[in-house]
Amino acid sequence: MQIAIMGFGTIGSGVAELLMKNKKSIVAKSTQNSLDIKYILDIRDFSDHEFGEYFTKDFNDILNDANVGIVVECMGGTSPAYEYVSSCLKAGKSVVSSNKELVAAKGYELLELAKENNVNFLFEASVGGGIPIIRPISQCLAANEICEIAGILNGTTNFILTKMIEEGMAFEDALKLAQDNGYAERDPSADILGHDAARKICILASLCFGKHVYPDVVETTGITEITPEDVAYAKNWGGVIKLIGRAIQNDNGKIIITVGPSLIQNHCQLASVDDVFNAILVRGDAIGDVVFYGKGAGKLPTASAVVADVIDCAKHTAKRKAFGWGPCEDDYVIAPNLNSGALYVRAQTDDYIAAFNAINKAFDAPAILHRDDEPKTEIAFITPVMREKEAREVIEKLPIDVKATLRVLDY
Amino acid sequence: MQIAIMGFGTIGSGVAELLMKNKKSIVAKSTQNSLDIKYILDIRDFSDHEFGEYFTKDFNDILNDANVGIVVECMGGTSPAYEYVSSCLKAGKSVVSSNKELVAAKGYELLELAKENNVNFLFEASVGGGIPIIRPISQCLAANEICEIAGILNGTTNFILTKMIEEGMAFEDALKLAQDNGYAERDPSADILGHDAARKICILASLCFGKHVYPDVVETTGITEITPEDVAYAKNWGGVIKLIGRAIQNDNGKIIITVGPSLIQNHCQLASVDDVFNAILVRGDAIGDVVFYGKGAGKLPTASAVVADVIDCAKHTAKRKAFGWGPCEDDYVIAPNLNSGALYVRAQTDDYIAAFNAINKAFDAPAILHRDDEPKTEIAFITPVMREKEAREVIEKLPIDVKATLRVLDY
Repeated sequence: MQIAIMGFGTIGSGVAELLMKNKKSIVAKSTQNSLDIKYILDIRDFSDHEFGEYFTKDFNDILNDANVGIVVECMGGTSPAYEYVSSCLKAGKSVVSSNKELVAAKGYELLELAKENNVNFLFEASVGGGIPIIRPISQCLAANEICEIAGILNGTTNFILTKMIEEGMAFEDALKLAQDNGYAERDPSADILGHDAARKICILASLCFGKHVYPDVVETTGITEITPEDVAYAKNWGGVIKLIGRAIQNDNGKIIITVGPSLIQNHCQLASVDDVFNAILVRGDAIGDVVFYGKGAGKLPTASAVVADVIDCAKHTAKRKAFGWGPCEDDYVIAPNLNSGALYVRAQTDDYIAAFNAINKAFDAPAILHRDDEPKTEIAFITPVMREKEAREVIEKLPIDVKATLRVLDY
Repeated sequence: MQIAIMGFGTIGSGVAELLMKNKKSIVAKSTQNSLDIKYILDIRDFSDHEFGEYFTKDFNDILNDANVGIVVECMGGTSPAYEYVSSCLKAGKSVVSSNKELVAAKGYELLELAKENNVNFLFEASVGGGIPIIRPISQCLAANEICEIAGILNGTTNFILTKMIEEGMAFEDALKLAQDNGYAERDPSADILGHDAARKICILASLCFGKHVYPDVVETTGITEITPEDVAYAKNWGGVIKLIGRAIQNDNGKIIITVGPSLIQNHCQLASVDDVFNAILVRGDAIGDVVFYGKGAGKLPTASAVVADVIDCAKHTAKRKAFGWGPCEDDYVIAPNLNSGALYVRAQTDDYIAAFNAINKAFDAPAILHRDDEPKTEIAFITPVMREKEAREVIEKLPIDVKATLRVLDY
């Protein structure tokens, strides 16, 4: 069976490298006689590259070659990736994609197209890099009704937060360190504003709960406003601040979906996920909580997930993988503040005692937090668990100048 | 499609309950029109049970019913489980087993029998309870050459060690608490002596490295000799003692496989796995380390894994799952002391200064450990990383009375 790779960036080159490196065992597992790269599509010139013979700049070489059974898409972005992937599926080729932007925007459409053409569209690498998560959700946890999925889905922001937590760095300094280490791009906005995590939690929510959720309906907050003070309060409380993407299905089948910096307690398995690592927690009615941990990005980890999908496509040429991923539905996603939970608040005050008393009067047993060198003009607390909308209304009326409000998640 | 369940203990009853509870979505995912329990085999009388109509005491009812396509084996033990499972496979029925003893002893034979009869033999629940691990290894990590697999595979011993670590309890008291909580059996030997973990690491090693490894070749040490002193030394060193099952493949394709209490550092993902939870770490050449965490036992978590396998069998009636699990081979498993690593040693001494000097002379930069209330007659240290056989020879010649030697694992 022959393979084409579209896009020879970090992931695409990792896929080619891994297919060559572990060729023998990969072919054996694929149950095919061979598994060979036929084309690599890239607009750049790689004629001097060790894989130079495979390169083409013309997508039609791939599309029109009937011997190419599996196409790997690692181009990123939605265009022309969407057009290319659609054409391949229509031409009866299975497609494996690592492109979260494409899957979050067009997952349902492409799965339908794959179904119509009796081929596979697989995308394990689009969430959590090399961490096995798409297949475990759709297969291993198939006996469960999943009620929640949450995770640390972006390595860049987790690296930044880890530096803020462990070394007390300010956000800007930690971001610069991430850039210097190659963990953050020169324009880091997709990461630090939470958009990357939003795409990934959309893919997970669509798979877990069965209807396509688009990134534009996700309440998305980045980490740019997190301060060392917030980190210090969280630490004294016994926890950490992590950027958590989270989707919950309530009893009426509606979805609450958010990306935002959140407080979690140290004993939570997600709390010890540091640096560029990712972890995803799935809560099912039978299994309880399961957590999947590993490298969420990087050349070979991500290629590992892509190649596993390639092997799967090669093994199941006559059988489609079934994902319960249906079309989007109106009024499916509801406002996150309809959910219950606790909130962390940091505020300025001219009169600490008055603020302290007002907070204690307004809430039933709030937890007042402290940190080293806490000025008398600052107060931080955690509300009791209550409907978020009500908590926010109460907070608004307090005689304090609110500087930060973060969710406290209970895992 | 019709299902039979053999054994109506904790897991078997959980399987029946889960198949009923989530029936609609389970049937949908199975791509069958229906998925119904036809028989439940148990020698006990359950005629008054809500599932009373399904019970039989006669295995032949199941074997001879051509409508039964999938048989779930939750009986435990190897006999008559082995005879029953063999007969079912020969009769063209797929079998799902949660029975680690059976899989560890007969996995290769039963997989071969399944292959001959073009049916499936699946056993996700035999390791890690509900944690998806068998399928991720064989599918999601298929692009990797796996070099190591290690985990906390026994919830009972992890509960006991957690109580020793967090509350300073002695082993006997923690064991009694585990028994009082129903986490340990009245005869806890299979758990506390490490035999249960040995069966599980054999199954994982057989899957990861491709040749059947039997439990009797696993160097197995239980936790009965671990003292609060060891726990305290580990804590001051910045780590914990966990019962780790571990299999490594060296460059020559040989296997080192052990079960034993081991020191791991706090930053390791396995260190924060507490109480009855399990976690399994897989190290692959492309992915690096991935960790799978969740409930390693219990009625519904384990049933979750069994039912996922049932769905898989129902979906793939015409296609066998391929596991690269070949026959056992002579001289495949080599002595663990041929490996390199560090060792933790606790010893008695009449002359601390002499012992201290001897240890520092014998080893290159050993780490001398301390604990609160450490008597002058006790000394504990960690050797440098070196070939274990040599380290043990050096330790034997030291002027100390060795009370404990544990491996220090580096994750």
